[in-house]
Amino acid sequence: MGRWEPDARGRLEQAALDLYQERGFEQTTVTEIAERAGLTERTFFRHFVDKREVLFGQQDLLRTICVRTIEAAPASTLPLDAVATALEALVPVFQERHELVRQRQAVIAANPGLQERELLKEAWLTSAMAEALQRRGVTNPAASLAAEVGVIAFKTAFDHWVNEPDAQDLLRLIQVSRDQLKDIVAGT
Amino acid sequence: MGRWEPDARGRLEQAALDLYQERGFEQTTVTEIAERAGLTERTFFRHFVDKREVLFGQQDLLRTICVRTIEAAPASTLPLDAVATALEALVPVFQERHELVRQRQAVIAANPGLQERELLKEAWLTSAMAEALQRRGVTNPAASLAAEVGVIAFKTAFDHWVNEPDAQDLLRLIQVSRDQLKDIVAGT
Repeated sequence: MGRWEPDARGRLEQAALDLYQERGFEQTTVTEIAERAGLTERTFFRHFVDKREVLFGQQDLLRTICVRTIEAAPASTLPLDAVATALEALVPVFQERHELVRQRQAVIAANPGLQERELLKEAWLTSAMAEALQRRGVTNPAASLAAEVGVIAFKTAFDHWVNEPDAQDLLRLIQVSRDQLKDIVAGT
Repeated sequence: MGRWEPDARGRLEQAALDLYQERGFEQTTVTEIAERAGLTERTFFRHFVDKREVLFGQQDLLRTICVRTIEAAPASTLPLDAVATALEALVPVFQERHELVRQRQAVIAANPGLQERELLKEAWLTSAMAEALQRRGVTNPAASLAAEVGVIAFKTAFDHWVNEPDAQDLLRLIQVSRDQLKDIVAGT
């Protein structure tokens, strides 16, 4: 992915996130989003199916990156390492959009319906990684445990990165949270 | 909790789950549930706010059991052990309702809207346990990592227990899945 450019799609996304934060997701209409972006509704619908897709349209891309990274890992890679590498491959996607990601998370946190959707998308990502591990010969429940644990380490780091104004590099935070997880599970 | 008795509430629950499985959750009405149970709609609404509460009405109880168990754990208990003990305290609630739990999970698996709700309830349970740990002086992210990891070990065992017709004792499965998790995280 190249650097994020404020093209039509980007302008619509920024306008939508601003409005979702100012007025709430439910209260915002597509007409208002298009207007704020200085574009037509028709242009909106060329880029997004509906106003929810502005928030969740990237999920397929994230899943594809994760699954392909697991598929490409050397055969000797341990399951949890394969998952960690897959999730670390997402870092550039988030890192270059730090402010947009923060806004998105704030909008989702304010709306239980969106939270539910976010959790479901996250569960799908986790399953897709577990299935990719199974195709590499990892049996269950090891495959799903590795995927779930990897996602937890990632999410803990991600939440910190989103919520702390002076957060460090996301990649570094993921490594810290994986080490903490190791300590917790080992009971030290 | 005493043994589950097929009283009015129990009859309504059984009738609802049967109908949700036969026809789908969306297609079932409260009128039909009451009729199948041989009771009135009024009786239904004395026990449940709506047809969704038949599936999720127990969540507050589960959360209370978990939080109290963490609060009651000796001060020296490690965070993950406190969470594991809390989740193990739920086993009797599920164990005595094995068939109902299976039916419930099948209904939820068939409906994305219900899956989303289930994930949100599970996230609330996890947060409640993380907060209970924080009140014991465990700092974040250790508190939330311990809660999340504990829930994963539990869920893996629970899914197996729900889906395998000849599943062993749930408590034993939880211990097995915790050991597997340790191996995965340690990279062995």
